Amino acid sequence: MEKVLQGVRVLDLTRVLAGPYASMILGDLGADIIKIENPDGGDDSRGFGPFVNGESVYFISLNRNKKSLSLNLKTEEGKEIFLKLVRKADIVLENFRPGTMEKLGLGYDELEKINPGIIYAATSGFGHTGPYSQKAAYDLIVQGMGGIMSLTGDPDGPPTRVGASIGDITSGLFTTIGILAALNKRKETGKGQKVDVSMLDSQVAILENAIARFAVSGVSPKPTGNRHPSITPFAVFTASNGYVVIALGNDHLWQKWCYTVEREELAEDPRFKTNGDRTNNWDVLEPIMNEIISKREVDAWLKIFEEAGIPAGPINDVANVVEHPQVKARDMIVYQDHPVAGRIMMPGIPIKLSKNPGSIETPAPLLGEHNEFILKELGYTELEMKRLEEQGVIQNRKVVIK
Amino acid sequence: MEKVLQGVRVLDLTRVLAGPYASMILGDLGADIIKIENPDGGDDSRGFGPFVNGESVYFISLNRNKKSLSLNLKTEEGKEIFLKLVRKADIVLENFRPGTMEKLGLGYDELEKINPGIIYAATSGFGHTGPYSQKAAYDLIVQGMGGIMSLTGDPDGPPTRVGASIGDITSGLFTTIGILAALNKRKETGKGQKVDVSMLDSQVAILENAIARFAVSGVSPKPTGNRHPSITPFAVFTASNGYVVIALGNDHLWQKWCYTVEREELAEDPRFKTNGDRTNNWDVLEPIMNEIISKREVDAWLKIFEEAGIPAGPINDVANVVEHPQVKARDMIVYQDHPVAGRIMMPGIPIKLSKNPGSIETPAPLLGEHNEFILKELGYTELEMKRLEEQGVIQNRKVVIK
Repeated sequence: MEKVLQGVRVLDLTRVLAGPYASMILGDLGADIIKIENPDGGDDSRGFGPFVNGESVYFISLNRNKKSLSLNLKTEEGKEIFLKLVRKADIVLENFRPGTMEKLGLGYDELEKINPGIIYAATSGFGHTGPYSQKAAYDLIVQGMGGIMSLTGDPDGPPTRVGASIGDITSGLFTTIGILAALNKRKETGKGQKVDVSMLDSQVAILENAIARFAVSGVSPKPTGNRHPSITPFAVFTASNGYVVIALGNDHLWQKWCYTVEREELAEDPRFKTNGDRTNNWDVLEPIMNEIISKREVDAWLKIFEEAGIPAGPINDVANVVEHPQVKARDMIVYQDHPVAGRIMMPGIPIKLSKNPGSIETPAPLLGEHNEFILKELGYTELEMKRLEEQGVIQNRKVVIK
Repeated sequence: MEKVLQGVRVLDLTRVLAGPYASMILGDLGADIIKIENPDGGDDSRGFGPFVNGESVYFISLNRNKKSLSLNLKTEEGKEIFLKLVRKADIVLENFRPGTMEKLGLGYDELEKINPGIIYAATSGFGHTGPYSQKAAYDLIVQGMGGIMSLTGDPDGPPTRVGASIGDITSGLFTTIGILAALNKRKETGKGQKVDVSMLDSQVAILENAIARFAVSGVSPKPTGNRHPSITPFAVFTASNGYVVIALGNDHLWQKWCYTVEREELAEDPRFKTNGDRTNNWDVLEPIMNEIISKREVDAWLKIFEEAGIPAGPINDVANVVEHPQVKARDMIVYQDHPVAGRIMMPGIPIKLSKNPGSIETPAPLLGEHNEFILKELGYTELEMKRLEEQGVIQNRKVVIK
C-alpha cells in the first residue's frame, strides 16, 4: 500500500530526541529519511545506554525507517554533497544550536537559493529569535523553565519533572505539524519556508488551562498532585495491593459509585451532593474513599467498577503497558530485528490511517550504512567514494558484532 | 499574509480538550474551523471554570479562531444541514465515543459517499478498534493506564500525574499530524481517509526510551524524580530561596562546574571522574552539590553559571513563565479581547512559519454565534432559520452580559 508521505524526502541532520522524534514520525508515515550524521561517532544518542551487543537501544528505538549517511559538513566536499542532496529534497530538518547552519554556509537563505521549494525545519531549545536563542537547553532545563514542573507533583512537595522527555517530544510534534502544513502549502505555491519551533515555546503551548487559571486569579497554579483541580472525585486511591484511578465527572456517577461500593448514605450526604460540595470537602471525602478502596485489590475494584459503568483504571508500569490488551490490539508495541542488536521492542505508530497507513520497515541504520546507496544515486563512483572516505568526508560503516 | 492552511475547512464536532486542541492548531494556522455544538449548552467545557462574566476562560483559551454553529444532530434537519456542510468541507473532526457518529448515520462510510475527499479524524480515549474501544476515558485514567505516571515523581513516592493534560494534548497533536499528512496525500489522489488516534496509543508513543530500557532489562523503569536516569549531574538542586536545575552532560562541563563553584578538589575526586562514576556515586554527590547550591539565591547562581557557560535554569511557576523575556520575545503569551469576558491571556502559537505564519484573529465564539453566517452560506433564508430555531434544530445565541 502506498504510504501517506511516500515520495517526500527529508534530509535529517538532527541528534538525540526532539528532531529524531519528528523525523521518526515522518518516516513512519512513509517519508524517505536520510539521516546525515557526523562521521566521528554520529548521532550522540548512539552513545546512550542501554546497549545490546554494543548498539544503543535508545538510538534504535528512535531511528527506525531511516537511512544513514555519515558526512562531514565541515569539509568543502561534504558541503557539496549535502547541497546536491538539497536540490532533490523536500525537507531539511536540524536541531543544532541556532546559527550553526549559517556558520557552515548552509542556512535557510542559502538552501532556498538552490531549491526554492525546500522546507527548512529547525527545532531548538529556545528558538531562532529572542534573547535566549543562543543558549543551550536540555529537556530538564526546559521543563523547569516552561512551567510544567511547577504544576507536577504533590501539592506540598517540590516541583517534579515529567518522567518522559516531554520538552523534546512536544517540540518534535509541533515541528512535524509545521513541516506538514508547509508541505501542503507548497503544493499550491511551489515555495518552501522555514519552520522554527522551540522546546520552551512548546512547553508554554501545553500549559493550556494553567495560563487561563493564572490569568483570572493572578496566582500561579500549584501542583494538584494526583487529582483534578476542579472535578471531584477525580483522583488516585490506594487499594490493598496498588493504586486505582477513579474519575467521576458528574453527580450521577458519584451517586452510582456510592451505591456500587454499598455506601448509600454517602450519596445522600449533603457535604458531597454537588461537584462544588465534593471539591470543597475533599479533605473529608478523600480519607473516606481511600478507606473504602483499601479493602480490596486493584483488579477486584476494576472489575466491580467496569460492571457498574464507572470510569476507573489502574496505574500501569511499563511491563503492564506492553502487555495491555488494548495496546496490543492497536499494534502499539512492535518488534523489529536489528542486524547487530537483534529483536528490539519499541512503540508502534499512534496515527492510524485507513487508506495509507504507516509502517515500520527497516531497523535503525548503522552509522554510514547507506553511504554507498545515497552517493551512487548522486552519481559518485566506487573510486570517488573510496577517496571521500580517505579524505574523511564520509566514514563507511565497519560492522563489528561484539 | 496568506495563512498556511487558508482555504481548508474543518467541521469540528469535538468537545473539551483533545479535539479542540487539534482544531485550535489548525485554526491558528489559518484553517476555517466551524465548531458544531449541541444547542443544549454546547461544548461541555463552556461549563468549566474559571469564569469571567459567566464565560469560561478554559473554553476561551482553547477555541479562538473558530466559528460556532449550534446544531442538533439528532434531528433530521440537523443532519441534513451537517451533510450539506460535509459536501463543501475538507475535514471532519470528532472526539465522541467510537460508534456515536455511526449511530447518527454520520460515520465515515456515509460521509465518504457524499464527499470522497473528506478527511475524517477521530480522537478518542482508546481508539476505534480493540477491546477497550467503547470505554470512557479521561486524561487521568489514560495517564494512569499508559505508563507515564509510573515514571513520574519521587523514586520512593507514589506514581504522579503530569500537571498538564498530556493524555489529551498529545492525542490532539498526533491527530493534527494525521490530518495534515492525509490532506497532503489528497492533493495527489483526490481521496480522503479516516484518521484514528487514541489517547492511550499516544501515551505509549511518548514513553520512548522507557520501553527500550524495559526491553533490555525486563524490569519496569521506576520514577527517577528530578534527575536524569543515566546522565549525572542532571538534576534539581535547592538554593537558598528556590530551585536550580543544573545539567552537566559531559566530563568537561562537570570540571568547569567544580572550578566555577570554587571546589577544584571535586574535579580531581576519583569518585566523580566520569559520568559512570558520578551516576554510581550520586548518593554521595547529591548532598555535596546541594550543600554548595544552598549558599546562594537562585538568581545569583544562574548569573554565575550563565557567565561560565554552564547549562542551568530556574524552575518557573506560571507567573514567571508569562513574564519570561524569551517567552515574550517569541509571542508565546498573547492577549485577546472577548466580547463578554474582556481581555484574556492565552498561549501563543509555537509553530513559527517564515512565509505563512499563523495568527490569532478572532476570540472563542459564543454558542451559535455564527449560525446565521453559516446557514446563509448554505442558502437558508431568515424565515427558514427562524423555523429551525423554533423546531430546536439550531439555537441562536442570546448574549447576556452579566
